Amino acid sequence: MIRIGIIGARGYTAGEALRWLIGHPEFEITCLMARVSDPEPVADYFPSLRNLLDVPISPLDLKVASAKCDAVLLCLPHTTAQEHAAALLESGLKVIDLSADFRFDSIPTFESTYGVSHLAPELNEKFPYALPELFGDEIAGAEALACPGCYPTATLLGLAPLLGRAEDFDLDRIVVNALSGVSGAGRKVEEAYLFTKCNENVSAYKVGEHRHRPEIEEKLSRLAGRDIRLTFTPHLIPVTRGILTTATVPMRRPATSESIGALYQKFYADHPFIRVLPAGRNPAIDAVAFTNFCDIGLTADSHSEALIIGSAIDNLGKGAAGQAVQAMNILFGFPETLGLLPGSLRQSAV
Amino acid sequence: MIRIGIIGARGYTAGEALRWLIGHPEFEITCLMARVSDPEPVADYFPSLRNLLDVPISPLDLKVASAKCDAVLLCLPHTTAQEHAAALLESGLKVIDLSADFRFDSIPTFESTYGVSHLAPELNEKFPYALPELFGDEIAGAEALACPGCYPTATLLGLAPLLGRAEDFDLDRIVVNALSGVSGAGRKVEEAYLFTKCNENVSAYKVGEHRHRPEIEEKLSRLAGRDIRLTFTPHLIPVTRGILTTATVPMRRPATSESIGALYQKFYADHPFIRVLPAGRNPAIDAVAFTNFCDIGLTADSHSEALIIGSAIDNLGKGAAGQAVQAMNILFGFPETLGLLPGSLRQSAV
Amino acid sequence: MIRIGIIGARGYTAGEALRWLIGHPEFEITCLMARVSDPEPVADYFPSLRNLLDVPISPLDLKVASAKCDAVLLCLPHTTAQEHAAALLESGLKVIDLSADFRFDSIPTFESTYGVSHLAPELNEKFPYALPELFGDEIAGAEALACPGCYPTATLLGLAPLLGRAEDFDLDRIVVNALSGVSGAGRKVEEAYLFTKCNENVSAYKVGEHRHRPEIEEKLSRLAGRDIRLTFTPHLIPVTRGILTTATVPMRRPATSESIGALYQKFYADHPFIRVLPAGRNPAIDAVAFTNFCDIGLTADSHSEALIIGSAIDNLGKGAAGQAVQAMNILFGFPETLGLLPGSLRQSAV
Amino acid sequence: MIRIGIIGARGYTAGEALRWLIGHPEFEITCLMARVSDPEPVADYFPSLRNLLDVPISPLDLKVASAKCDAVLLCLPHTTAQEHAAALLESGLKVIDLSADFRFDSIPTFESTYGVSHLAPELNEKFPYALPELFGDEIAGAEALACPGCYPTATLLGLAPLLGRAEDFDLDRIVVNALSGVSGAGRKVEEAYLFTKCNENVSAYKVGEHRHRPEIEEKLSRLAGRDIRLTFTPHLIPVTRGILTTATVPMRRPATSESIGALYQKFYADHPFIRVLPAGRNPAIDAVAFTNFCDIGLTADSHSEALIIGSAIDNLGKGAAGQAVQAMNILFGFPETLGLLPGSLRQSAV
Repeated sequence: MIRIGIIGARGYTAGEALRWLIGHPEFEITCLMARVSDPEPVADYFPSLRNLLDVPISPLDLKVASAKCDAVLLCLPHTTAQEHAAALLESGLKVIDLSADFRFDSIPTFESTYGVSHLAPELNEKFPYALPELFGDEIAGAEALACPGCYPTATLLGLAPLLGRAEDFDLDRIVVNALSGVSGAGRKVEEAYLFTKCNENVSAYKVGEHRHRPEIEEKLSRLAGRDIRLTFTPHLIPVTRGILTTATVPMRRPATSESIGALYQKFYADHPFIRVLPAGRNPAIDAVAFTNFCDIGLTADSHSEALIIGSAIDNLGKGAAGQAVQAMNILFGFPETLGLLPGSLRQSAV
Repeated sequence: MIRIGIIGARGYTAGEALRWLIGHPEFEITCLMARVSDPEPVADYFPSLRNLLDVPISPLDLKVASAKCDAVLLCLPHTTAQEHAAALLESGLKVIDLSADFRFDSIPTFESTYGVSHLAPELNEKFPYALPELFGDEIAGAEALACPGCYPTATLLGLAPLLGRAEDFDLDRIVVNALSGVSGAGRKVEEAYLFTKCNENVSAYKVGEHRHRPEIEEKLSRLAGRDIRLTFTPHLIPVTRGILTTATVPMRRPATSESIGALYQKFYADHPFIRVLPAGRNPAIDAVAFTNFCDIGLTADSHSEALIIGSAIDNLGKGAAGQAVQAMNILFGFPETLGLLPGSLRQSAV
Repeated sequence: MIRIGIIGARGYTAGEALRWLIGHPEFEITCLMARVSDPEPVADYFPSLRNLLDVPISPLDLKVASAKCDAVLLCLPHTTAQEHAAALLESGLKVIDLSADFRFDSIPTFESTYGVSHLAPELNEKFPYALPELFGDEIAGAEALACPGCYPTATLLGLAPLLGRAEDFDLDRIVVNALSGVSGAGRKVEEAYLFTKCNENVSAYKVGEHRHRPEIEEKLSRLAGRDIRLTFTPHLIPVTRGILTTATVPMRRPATSESIGALYQKFYADHPFIRVLPAGRNPAIDAVAFTNFCDIGLTADSHSEALIIGSAIDNLGKGAAGQAVQAMNILFGFPETLGLLPGSLRQSAV
Repeated sequence: MIRIGIIGARGYTAGEALRWLIGHPEFEITCLMARVSDPEPVADYFPSLRNLLDVPISPLDLKVASAKCDAVLLCLPHTTAQEHAAALLESGLKVIDLSADFRFDSIPTFESTYGVSHLAPELNEKFPYALPELFGDEIAGAEALACPGCYPTATLLGLAPLLGRAEDFDLDRIVVNALSGVSGAGRKVEEAYLFTKCNENVSAYKVGEHRHRPEIEEKLSRLAGRDIRLTFTPHLIPVTRGILTTATVPMRRPATSESIGALYQKFYADHPFIRVLPAGRNPAIDAVAFTNFCDIGLTADSHSEALIIGSAIDNLGKGAAGQAVQAMNILFGFPETLGLLPGSLRQSAV
């Protein structure tokens, strides 16, 4: 059993990681830490886990973490994971970072996006961008992983198969509208996330300035081999979990939903967490909530000469903790789906 | 007092019309009809109206309607308003149609969109498209009104100020993503509208084939003086009321949110139901729910060279019954806002 | 026009009062105050009121309030209204307090319930308990009003007609289960009221220790002329507005839902905001939301020999601001329903 | 592997059973049937299960079912399971009935409650009432199981530890208020279950006449050894999953929440799916949703001399399909928790 610790164990991403890890046949939770003064039971933060886990949430102590764990998930606010990465890596632990700190290839892009100086730029290249379906080759055997953001995961998976097809699609006029459930904000206690503000309400936010756009554009550009910019408009919707992105891409040549579906099916043939829906079906949040799936639906609209791509994930699952476990499976040499599909529960890890 | 009847009085649009009309100082509800066999109390269909209205919902009888009313709202399913229009107009009643039957300038577009032959094409020109802010001149004194659809109202109000500016905006690449509350489906008892299907869920629907796109395009083209096509992707969101449209329009020249805001402010200066928000504010459904307002927010995104326009309405209010009352105010020569703004309640009608 | 001010103008109760007052034919909002450093537009706190009210929210200044107003609504946290009451009353203003500060006949009960010493016990008797249907006689011409809590309003209205019937009902075994929407907590930014905590969730809270129980018991006892205790269990439900109480009272003698319905109809015959439903109908939040109604449903369960009483209100309407306006109508000699029913909007105030 | 079939495979209970069974280490789904004319993919009814299960939903054929299965779950409407039970039992299959058909000890009580004649009363005693924590002894080795209703499960588990304590608690004045999520109505397409009716709404329903009361009373009476009647008032709340019952029981002697908590802890010591919460904690739906747990919270209210018992389950989990799997584990001799707890997934079945 690989011994796993979580630092920043009180947030929603940590809770979701616990949900996946408790039932995982090869990972064992040995250490939970957070900025608490005394050990606290996990059920105080995640009542659904009462009686399921004996490990308390203890004060942060990197030495203890190093002694108790083989790998550590950092579920910390952006810009604070950098503080701990070096010490943890030196102890020989695998570091799985769920923050934005090591997601960017370009340190200046990170710094301008997050408005801070990076504290550990020399470590950045140790952290491959852990989106298995698109950058999986870099994960196996890595020392550390930078887990993608939720919007980037949904958006990149929806657009990736088109990036080699600049002759068929106008990659300079991609429009992405994204809808996110409120858990995307974490356990942040701000007026904007009160029930009374979110319920029976919808609005766009951070229009033209969301931090996930630079992350998306950097990875799209890398995959396309050229600079790509897009219009990205996120919205907050009154559901707890889930992201639905609707991307619109001008088509340069006529195509059918079926032919583009076939392209996507082929592109994702070896990737069990991507479900390309039959033509005429639209992805929906309720089909992916609490799972590690990304459902993709495709409509070629001949009237406006545009391809409309819907992509649905659970922001805490495939958009965060589920994907982290998927990447850890690869990193440690287990089957990619281990512990993440109901069917895989009977599957042997070795 | 103008005597008002409603035919098709059990649907959500009718209920919303009742909510506005009960308190209106110049309109009096004298007749409610629907396909019932015996008169039924209004509270059986709209429990919130218990004790507020003495008029029962009676079986359909156009002669009785003609005798009791000066104007009739048709809250009927699409393609059935056509059956009654001629008889009602001949009786000298004003006919306010909330269905799609007379919304189109082009009968063939109506017929291909709704998949039926039009039963009364000769009456079509009697029904101006009653979107007061854009086509208000045709309303005063009309015999009949065709009230716009909810998606078209939000979309057209959001885009209209740009249509004369083809040199600044690429009107051939407009992308509209629209989010609608479930009441947009009316009181239709279908699995898709069950609580268990809609709650904690979001998805696009009728992608590339929604009936409101031809309506939007016909009116946009009329306003722009040229053929306009757009990508229109509607989504169902788990709120009861409200529509939020997010339109993305490529900008041909740099512009600021403030300068475009000024353009919109000027365009809508005489229109009290349009609230152009200050730069940096995004329209939200909860600010317009239960009102006749349309809130518009504007962001000029220099990074992707696109203008992002948010437009929020209550689909039952400004998107249906509220707008119908607004148009009836104009038709009968009352102040446009009469009975529709809290402030107007103290306002004299004459 | 009576000039009205609101102190504590940023909370949900204040916003709801504004919604009612803006359209009221005899009240005029002249002054809004809160703990702000500079005047702020009302739309920053209540986006739905944009363009509807010119009065800014200004820093607290009792002298200014006295000069600008005839009456002041105190929408302040419990225990702080006491600080301002004396000064405002001395200036000759009518004081309408929406906090708990002056709701209790017994100062010791207030003090033990709220855990503080009362700062102005000598003023307490100036504040009649302003539940018009039960204690309306004390309102007309009062100097000040203590507006009831939301749970007490629903519970007292549901139980009052039984209190003179101790021979028919066992008043010592009343069980009240109450369900409240999240706006009952106001605009309080606490984790318990986050969307992610409230959505898809329900639980009881403050079981056996809610502050509204002593208020309910004091008034029940006063009406019954004897000491009454009850079991009161409040629950938080995922709706924004509304309270539904379900009271169970053992019956000493057989009775029918119809006969008890007749008793309630008679009891509330002169009270237009109480709607006693026909036998077999259950009150529902959506029939009273955004209104000043209290809907009451009655089921005599012969099997368990108990009467089950459902009572539904809007916690911000009849449970707070709507009821305050109703009481102010009485205080100033206007018709009780003025500005509170759509139908009353055409009703003359004099 | 035990081969499992489901008849009535399109309903919510069936879907939930699939969710549990797909990941179960000892049960294998071999047959899905419903009133369809041609085989249909499971994803058409349960989009979240796309790619997870190869078995189609086929037309009903009991012979095929008998050939392919060792046990069959009947997820059929009440009163129709009776039609198939005899044939299935004769084929030697274990029959797990999730309807009400065989839940009652008394056939007359069933008949008066469901308003039909029982078609197979001679089979009734083959079906023990499969609530493992209370009647577990009858499950192991049974030929058939009658799975309890959702309200009865939550109510009985909350009250059972008191039934031997008639000297301490007044068992003749039990009041149960129950709140249910909308999935309790199944996939029924009726107006009452539309999103627009349920959202932002709450009301009681079937007051004094819910079909689950006789089921609860029969089992309570059996456990107590005397006739017990209670007041039971169910409410519909706007969540998809979950039941919360709040029971109030008069106390004959003073007691503390802690002492009663200890009684419950002891009563349920060997039952891993019952979590008795520490004093001061209230059960919440979100801690049990998607699980097979029942959380119980206890408050001794000395003021009103009543014990308040909260009991929360997932109506589809512990209230239906989860509990059925738990009972099947016992029936087939596997550990009770197999496949139902994340932790048990690594537990060997033999």
